[in-house]
Amino acid sequence: MPTESWVNETLYAEWGQRFLVKRELARVQSEFQDIMLFESYSHGRVMLLDGAVQITEKDEFVYQEMLTHVPLLAHGAARRVLIIGAGDGGVLKRVLQHKTVEKAVMVEIDGEVIRLCREHMPDIGGSAWTDPRAEVIVGDGIDYVRKAETGSFDVMIVDSTDPIGVGEVLFTDEFYANAARLLSERGLIVNQCGVPIMQAEELEVTSLRRGKAFNDIWAYVVAVPTYVGGFMTLGWAAKDASLRQVDVATIRQRAEAAGVAGQTQYWTPEIHVGAFNLPPYISKHLPLAS
Amino acid sequence: MPTESWVNETLYAEWGQRFLVKRELARVQSEFQDIMLFESYSHGRVMLLDGAVQITEKDEFVYQEMLTHVPLLAHGAARRVLIIGAGDGGVLKRVLQHKTVEKAVMVEIDGEVIRLCREHMPDIGGSAWTDPRAEVIVGDGIDYVRKAETGSFDVMIVDSTDPIGVGEVLFTDEFYANAARLLSERGLIVNQCGVPIMQAEELEVTSLRRGKAFNDIWAYVVAVPTYVGGFMTLGWAAKDASLRQVDVATIRQRAEAAGVAGQTQYWTPEIHVGAFNLPPYISKHLPLAS
Repeated sequence: MPTESWVNETLYAEWGQRFLVKRELARVQSEFQDIMLFESYSHGRVMLLDGAVQITEKDEFVYQEMLTHVPLLAHGAARRVLIIGAGDGGVLKRVLQHKTVEKAVMVEIDGEVIRLCREHMPDIGGSAWTDPRAEVIVGDGIDYVRKAETGSFDVMIVDSTDPIGVGEVLFTDEFYANAARLLSERGLIVNQCGVPIMQAEELEVTSLRRGKAFNDIWAYVVAVPTYVGGFMTLGWAAKDASLRQVDVATIRQRAEAAGVAGQTQYWTPEIHVGAFNLPPYISKHLPLAS
Repeated sequence: MPTESWVNETLYAEWGQRFLVKRELARVQSEFQDIMLFESYSHGRVMLLDGAVQITEKDEFVYQEMLTHVPLLAHGAARRVLIIGAGDGGVLKRVLQHKTVEKAVMVEIDGEVIRLCREHMPDIGGSAWTDPRAEVIVGDGIDYVRKAETGSFDVMIVDSTDPIGVGEVLFTDEFYANAARLLSERGLIVNQCGVPIMQAEELEVTSLRRGKAFNDIWAYVVAVPTYVGGFMTLGWAAKDASLRQVDVATIRQRAEAAGVAGQTQYWTPEIHVGAFNLPPYISKHLPLAS
């Protein structure tokens, strides 16, 4: 990649975003995927996997905060958290901001992603990489959930690529059945479900699968600047439907108790509660909407 | 523009979206701006003004619904509506969906935009173009508000390009002073304020100006897929702060009375109320936040 060139995201064949590149930082073909890191003029450092934007320094807080704080504070007593994917470390960092969390296990299949992010974007994971409550495993998330002890986690966060390529195996019936088994009584799982205006079938197909293993299936929305296309949906599967109906005052109290109140740039108690209100163009793709 | 080429949005110098073009529909240098219309593979027909995406057939409902239904239903008794800009006709159509509206005046400076949109995107405005309640004026919005009778409108909607180029003159102290004068006692004005992650100064600067003429200054958010960059803000300036604090049940009743309930793909009463909850990364740019 020459200096001052443009990088085009290739996630969609006919539309997408592009970045003017200040300098390339790394380009690696790992065992699993094509990893590209560069310094942009507009968004700080950026990582693409197989041509799709995963993270930029400028807006990573949006996705990470909503993927983490919403399930943890909706649960209210999450002590043990399992993260699948999220090799950049940003979700792990947010999980560990909750002083109520005792253990966070992160299972990322591609060690090269962790290595390159720690080298080129060290602030994304920050002190989480060495936090004694964290266990970082380079390995297969499918295998991990298959073997995990029943009831051993309270919240599970799946920060995968889209359900094509490496991430595809995460979105199976077997995976969700194992997720339901390893989660405790009031446990829940969240996972990214794509941008409905472009990828509505992701929400639809994976919601049907989650519905085979969990009582309460829903989604919530977040406007991530560089996951272009308006709202992204984060899939929600819980054993207890009341978890997505907690009121603003309770969520605020929990955030204060966990030590994350005032630490966020996107998440607030009001936005947390409001994110479950879906526009009709999105809710029509929730096949199990109750 | 050759067939099967890409069109790059040039709104930002270092980042942006691009569309694969099926065929060009029109490319006109009007008295005011460069107008480009094309058929895309991904978003139906698309219009750019001076290189910035204004509308796509695929997602136009998002912006139009939120720019229209929120102020009209927050007001609750809007009979006379003034629209500045919005040459594609989509805001006019949504305003006239409210059977409670008796008069809608639309002032668009560039007659070529109206002509090209009516020719190539006739469904965007639809029957609004010939509705007897509508008055479409090709002319200068600044001049119109200067001469408009005091208290002659209840809601004013400014659907301009960004405050650079043609749209710049709309965002002055004089314009807002005239807006306050022409609006009735409980009147309010909304206008697009850009995408804060990229254009935070638009919200900050124009909020300060609105604050010189109106008591209540705020903004609300909408995730427009092709105004890339996460949430866009719509600026809010009202004479009565209670208008942005109306509850979900009341908004729902008003939507039913106006005949717009169930007609929307993005707007719902819940999303209406929730849109005033701003993420901290946006609210910090509201200098007059109360």
